Amino acid sequence: MSKLRVGIVGAGRIGNVHAESITYHIPEAEVAMVTDVMEASAKKLAERFGVPKHSADYMDIINDPDIDAVLVCSPTPTHADISIAAMKAGKHVFCEKPVHTSIEKIQEVAKVAEETGRKLQIGFNRRFDHNHKAVQRMAASGKLGNVEIIKITSRDPEPPSPEYAASSGGLYIDMMIHDFDMAMFLAGSDVTEVYALGTSLVDKRIGEAGDVDTAIVTLTFENGALGVIDNSRRAAYGYDQRVEVFGSLGMAADENDGDSTVKVSTADGVVGEKPQFFFLERYMASFTEEMKQFIRAIREDAEVPVGIHAGLMSVVLAKAAKKSLDEHRPVKISEII
Amino acid sequence: MSKLRVGIVGAGRIGNVHAESITYHIPEAEVAMVTDVMEASAKKLAERFGVPKHSADYMDIINDPDIDAVLVCSPTPTHADISIAAMKAGKHVFCEKPVHTSIEKIQEVAKVAEETGRKLQIGFNRRFDHNHKAVQRMAASGKLGNVEIIKITSRDPEPPSPEYAASSGGLYIDMMIHDFDMAMFLAGSDVTEVYALGTSLVDKRIGEAGDVDTAIVTLTFENGALGVIDNSRRAAYGYDQRVEVFGSLGMAADENDGDSTVKVSTADGVVGEKPQFFFLERYMASFTEEMKQFIRAIREDAEVPVGIHAGLMSVVLAKAAKKSLDEHRPVKISEII
Amino acid sequence: MSKLRVGIVGAGRIGNVHAESITYHIPEAEVAMVTDVMEASAKKLAERFGVPKHSADYMDIINDPDIDAVLVCSPTPTHADISIAAMKAGKHVFCEKPVHTSIEKIQEVAKVAEETGRKLQIGFNRRFDHNHKAVQRMAASGKLGNVEIIKITSRDPEPPSPEYAASSGGLYIDMMIHDFDMAMFLAGSDVTEVYALGTSLVDKRIGEAGDVDTAIVTLTFENGALGVIDNSRRAAYGYDQRVEVFGSLGMAADENDGDSTVKVSTADGVVGEKPQFFFLERYMASFTEEMKQFIRAIREDAEVPVGIHAGLMSVVLAKAAKKSLDEHRPVKISEII
Amino acid sequence: MSKLRVGIVGAGRIGNVHAESITYHIPEAEVAMVTDVMEASAKKLAERFGVPKHSADYMDIINDPDIDAVLVCSPTPTHADISIAAMKAGKHVFCEKPVHTSIEKIQEVAKVAEETGRKLQIGFNRRFDHNHKAVQRMAASGKLGNVEIIKITSRDPEPPSPEYAASSGGLYIDMMIHDFDMAMFLAGSDVTEVYALGTSLVDKRIGEAGDVDTAIVTLTFENGALGVIDNSRRAAYGYDQRVEVFGSLGMAADENDGDSTVKVSTADGVVGEKPQFFFLERYMASFTEEMKQFIRAIREDAEVPVGIHAGLMSVVLAKAAKKSLDEHRPVKISEII
Repeated sequence: MSKLRVGIVGAGRIGNVHAESITYHIPEAEVAMVTDVMEASAKKLAERFGVPKHSADYMDIINDPDIDAVLVCSPTPTHADISIAAMKAGKHVFCEKPVHTSIEKIQEVAKVAEETGRKLQIGFNRRFDHNHKAVQRMAASGKLGNVEIIKITSRDPEPPSPEYAASSGGLYIDMMIHDFDMAMFLAGSDVTEVYALGTSLVDKRIGEAGDVDTAIVTLTFENGALGVIDNSRRAAYGYDQRVEVFGSLGMAADENDGDSTVKVSTADGVVGEKPQFFFLERYMASFTEEMKQFIRAIREDAEVPVGIHAGLMSVVLAKAAKKSLDEHRPVKISEII
Repeated sequence: MSKLRVGIVGAGRIGNVHAESITYHIPEAEVAMVTDVMEASAKKLAERFGVPKHSADYMDIINDPDIDAVLVCSPTPTHADISIAAMKAGKHVFCEKPVHTSIEKIQEVAKVAEETGRKLQIGFNRRFDHNHKAVQRMAASGKLGNVEIIKITSRDPEPPSPEYAASSGGLYIDMMIHDFDMAMFLAGSDVTEVYALGTSLVDKRIGEAGDVDTAIVTLTFENGALGVIDNSRRAAYGYDQRVEVFGSLGMAADENDGDSTVKVSTADGVVGEKPQFFFLERYMASFTEEMKQFIRAIREDAEVPVGIHAGLMSVVLAKAAKKSLDEHRPVKISEII
Repeated sequence: MSKLRVGIVGAGRIGNVHAESITYHIPEAEVAMVTDVMEASAKKLAERFGVPKHSADYMDIINDPDIDAVLVCSPTPTHADISIAAMKAGKHVFCEKPVHTSIEKIQEVAKVAEETGRKLQIGFNRRFDHNHKAVQRMAASGKLGNVEIIKITSRDPEPPSPEYAASSGGLYIDMMIHDFDMAMFLAGSDVTEVYALGTSLVDKRIGEAGDVDTAIVTLTFENGALGVIDNSRRAAYGYDQRVEVFGSLGMAADENDGDSTVKVSTADGVVGEKPQFFFLERYMASFTEEMKQFIRAIREDAEVPVGIHAGLMSVVLAKAAKKSLDEHRPVKISEII
Repeated sequence: MSKLRVGIVGAGRIGNVHAESITYHIPEAEVAMVTDVMEASAKKLAERFGVPKHSADYMDIINDPDIDAVLVCSPTPTHADISIAAMKAGKHVFCEKPVHTSIEKIQEVAKVAEETGRKLQIGFNRRFDHNHKAVQRMAASGKLGNVEIIKITSRDPEPPSPEYAASSGGLYIDMMIHDFDMAMFLAGSDVTEVYALGTSLVDKRIGEAGDVDTAIVTLTFENGALGVIDNSRRAAYGYDQRVEVFGSLGMAADENDGDSTVKVSTADGVVGEKPQFFFLERYMASFTEEMKQFIRAIREDAEVPVGIHAGLMSVVLAKAAKKSLDEHRPVKISEII
C-alpha cells in the first residue's frame, strides 16, 4: 500500500506539530501540501519538513485529487466549513477542537460525515496521554468497579492576555472543553447536568472582559456518577494536569510529569521537579499518538478513536456551564440540545 | 500550679480517647470523674485509667466543686444542655461535634459561653492533624499567596448500616461536617454559599432511608475563593483523607498516611501501603493534640483554638447543603442564619 | 496475673524512654525502682513517672526480691556485669547495646543466660521500626524469593564531638553496629566476611582522633547474599535511615519518615518534608514495641525477639570492620571468633 | 553550512538507534552510508531511513571523501582499529563502548586522536539521561557541597544466556562499565582503588562459565569520596537504574522512570508502574542527545562531551574489579595503568 497523502490547512503551532508527527513518526503517511492564509507560514512549514507543495488557499488541498486526508488546523470559526468541504470532496478529516461554537453547525458536520462515510476525528489529544489513558484503561477494565466520582484538575501556568480571554469564547469553551471531554472519556458516560462556579481571581481585567479565570464545575453523569473539574488560568508551579477516577473497588489517579525524577535533599527540604511547563512539553507524545491512530483508522478502515459525538458534547457542556454561571443554577444538558 | 481536674461525660469510644490523652500525655491535668448513663461503661473507663470516681449521672460532675473542666462526649442531642449546665456551674467545656442540630440551640450555647466567660472548645480534631495542619500553616503564612481554590477529599473505608445512616441526620451533618470545618480552616474564611450534589451509589438502602452516600459540594468563600468537597461512605482502599490549597503563589497538598513507607517491587508492579484504616488509626495523635491545647488554653487563660463559631458554621453549612440537595439549587448561607 | 515489676538501671535518656513506655503503654508492667550513680537523675525519673523507689546503687535492684526484670541502661562498660548479676539473682534482663566491647565478656553473658534460664533481650530497637520491620517481613515471607542483595543507608544529622568520637570505640561499634544487626535481621543470615572503607570527610578532628566519619562496608552472608552499608556522621537534610532487600522475585525498600506528607508546589519546585530529625523522633515507637515484646516474652515464657546471638554478632562484625580498615583487606568473621 | 555527512559502521540495534536520531532529530546531519559485514542488515537500515549508500565493507566509508564523521557501531573487537583508520582518513569518530579490552589498544586510539586532531567521542549515553544528568548537575553546581558518597544501583531485567556471559568479557566490563563511567561522572573525579564482590546467584551456569551475575564494588575516588555500585543480571520488576550523590550540604538521587505516573489504590494496596523495561525504552532519549552533542561538537569545533579518557578509565576500572575479585583484595588503579 502506498503512503497516505495528507494536506494540512493552517501552518500555525498545531499544524507544525502534526507535520512533525507525520514526517518523523508515521512512515505510512506523508504531508503532500500545506496551506495558510499567511503564505509565508505555509512556506516555512513546507521547508522545515520537506513538504512538496504549499499555498495560501485551502481549496488547493480540497481540489487535489491525490490528497487522501485533511488536517484542519486553521482558526476555530473555519473548522466546520473546511471539514465539510473536505469530506464532500471525498477526503478523510482530522479536525481540531472545538469543531465550532454553534451546536447546529457541529450537527451539520456530523451529518456530512455520515452521508459521505468519511472518517472524521476530533483533536482531543489528551485522551492519548500516557497518564490519563492509563487511568481510563483501569476504569474501563472494570478493576475499579462501578465509577462513582471523577475529579479533574487542570491549571495553566500563565494566564492569556485579557484581549485573548475576551475573544476566546470564555474559559469554559476555550480551556475547560478539554476537561469536559476527559470527564466523559474517563466516566465512559455522557453528562446530564452541570453546575458552574466561576470568578476572576488571577487577573481582574479578565473579569472586566466578561470572562472568568478560576472555575469549578460539577457534573452529573448518565451512569449515576458525580464529577468535578477545577480550572485556573495561572499556576505558579507550572502546568497542573491530574485526573482521578474513584469506583466501588478502588481508585486510579495520576500525577504530573516532571523533567526528571530527581529529589534533592538539603537543609531546606526535599525538592522535586515542577510539572513540565505547558501543553507542548507535557502533551507532545499524545499529539503523535492521536495522529498515528487517525492514519491507522483510515488505512484499516476502522473507527476513529475520537468521533464527532465527542466534538459535539464537549461544546454542549461548555455552553451549559456558561448558562449555569450566568443564571446561577444547575443546567440540564437537555436545555442545550 | 496543681493539676487541672477534668470530668468526662460519656464513656464511649471518644471519651476513652480523651481519657487516654490526659492520663498518659498531659501531666498538667488528670481525670477526676467519669459518668455514663450506662454505669458499667463509666466504671470500665475509670478502672482502665485509674480515675477515682465514676457515676451514671453527669450532674455529679457538674456539682463537684473540685472539677475544673468538663469533656462532653455524650450523644449529640445532649451536647448543648450539658455544656450549658457545666458553664453555668463555672466549668470550662470541651464539647464534641456537632454541638447540636438546631442553630438556635448552638447560639444559646454561644451566649452562655460569652456570659459566663468560660472556655468552650469544639472537638474538630482534624485541625490538629500533622498533615492538614501543615497545609493550613502554609496557607496562613502567605507563602501560597491569595487562596483561590480549596479541595478536600474525605472517604470512609466502610459504609454505616442503613439504620445508622437514617438516624444520623444524614451525610452532610454526620460526615461532611468535618470537611466543612476543614474548608473554612484552610481558607481562613467563612463560606457564603453552597451547592450540593448527592446520590446513593454505595448502598441503595441508604438512599431508600432518605440519605446519600456519595456527595460533592461546592463552596464559595467570603474571601472570593472557591472550594469543593467530595465524600464517599466506602473506599475499597481505606480511609482517604486529603486536602489541597491552591493560591496565587503555589499549592500545598497532603497525601494519606500509611502504616509504613515501604514499596515492594515485583513483576506485578510497585506496591505501597494503603491509607491507615479509619479515624482512630489515622487521627489518634490529633485527639491528643486538641486536648493538650484545650488544657493549655485554660491554664494560660488563652483563647481556645476551635471556638463556638466553628461549631456553629459547620452545622449551618451542613443545613445549607441539605437544603441545596433538596431544592436542587445553590443556597446562600444567609438563608440559613 | 499481677503486674510485672521492672527495675531500671541508668536514668539517662534511654532509661527515661523505657520508663515512659512501661508507664503509659504497657499496663502489664510497672517500674518499681530506678537507680543511677547520679542519684538526682534517678530521683527525677522516679518523680516524672511515679516510680516508688530510687537509689544510687543498682544492687538495690538486684537485691530486691520483688523485682522481676532489670533494664540495663547504664554506660556500656557496665552492661555485661550488671546483666550477669541480675540474671544470677533470678531476674530477666533487657540489656542495651552494645553488650560489651569484649567478645569474651559477651560470651560470658550468654553462658550465664543459658545457665540461669533467664530471658535476655538486647536493645536493637530498629528491628521493631514500622518501616524496617515491614521490609524484613516481606523478605522472610518468601515473596522476594532468595535474598541476593542487602543495602542499608544510615546517616546521622550531626556529627558527635571529636572527644566523643575518640572515646566511643569508633564509628563501626558506636554507629554501624545498628546496621550490622539490621543487615543480618534483613538477610535472615549471619555474615561471614566484611570489607571496610572509612575516611574522615565531615570533621578532620575525628580523623585526627583515630576514627572515621564516613564509611562503606560490604558484607558476604552465609546464605550467599551480598550486602553493603554506608554511614555518615552528618547529613544536612536530617537522619537518613533506609533499607533495601533485593531478591530473586523482587525488592522491598523503605523511605524516610517526615513530619507530614505535605508537598508544597511553588515556582521554586515541589518541596516535601525532610526526614525526622534524629533517633528519638524517628524511632520512638520502636522503643515502646521492643519493651512490649520483652514483657510479653517474660509473661508468656516465650523466646525473646532479639537474643544474645545478635548482641554478639553485631560486635564481632564491628571488630572485623575495624580490622579490615586497619589492615586494608577483607576480613573473615572466623578471624574474630 | 551544509549538512554534516555521517557514515555508520554496523547496522545492528545501536546503529539503527543512531540512524534514527540523525534522520529524525538532527537536521544538521544526514546518514550518507551504512556498512555491515552482513550486507542485508546494511541494506535494511538504508531502506528504513532513506540512506543513499550501503555496503558490506567499512572501508567504503573510510575511503569516501564526502563523509565527515564515522559512527563505530560494529562488534567490540573492531572498535579500535576502525576508529584509528577513520581518524587517519581525516574523519571524526563516535565510538561505542568499550573502546577495546586492551589498555594498550585504547591508548593507541587516544594517541591517533591527539595526532590527527579529530573529534573522538565515546558512547556513554547514560551521561545524557534526563535523570542522571540532573543529579550530576546538582553535584557539579556545588549545591551539594563536597561530594562524599556515590551510590549506583544498576540491575538488568533479564540475564543473558550463559554463552553470552562467557564471551562478553564478564559482568564488570560488559555491564558495570557503564556504572564505572557514571560514578566518575557523578563524582567529578577519577577512582584510585576498587574492591569487588561478585557471585553467581541468578543462573549457576553463569558462574560455571567463570562469570558473576550479582556484584558489589566499592570505589575510592581521588577527591576523597567513597562509592559503591551494585549490579544484578536479573530484577524481577524491570530495569533498575538509580544513582545517588551525597555531599556535605545534601543529597541528590533519582528514581526509575515508569510508563505513567498512575497509582491504583484498591483493597490490595497502592500500585504504581514498574520501571521501564530495558535500555532501549529507558535510555532512548539519551542516545539522541549524545548524538546531537557529537554533531554539535564537530560543527562548532568544540570539545566532545565524553572523550577517550572516559573510554580508557572505565575499562581500567573493569580490569581492576576483575583482578580484585580474582585476588580477593582491594586493587589500586596504579596496578593496572
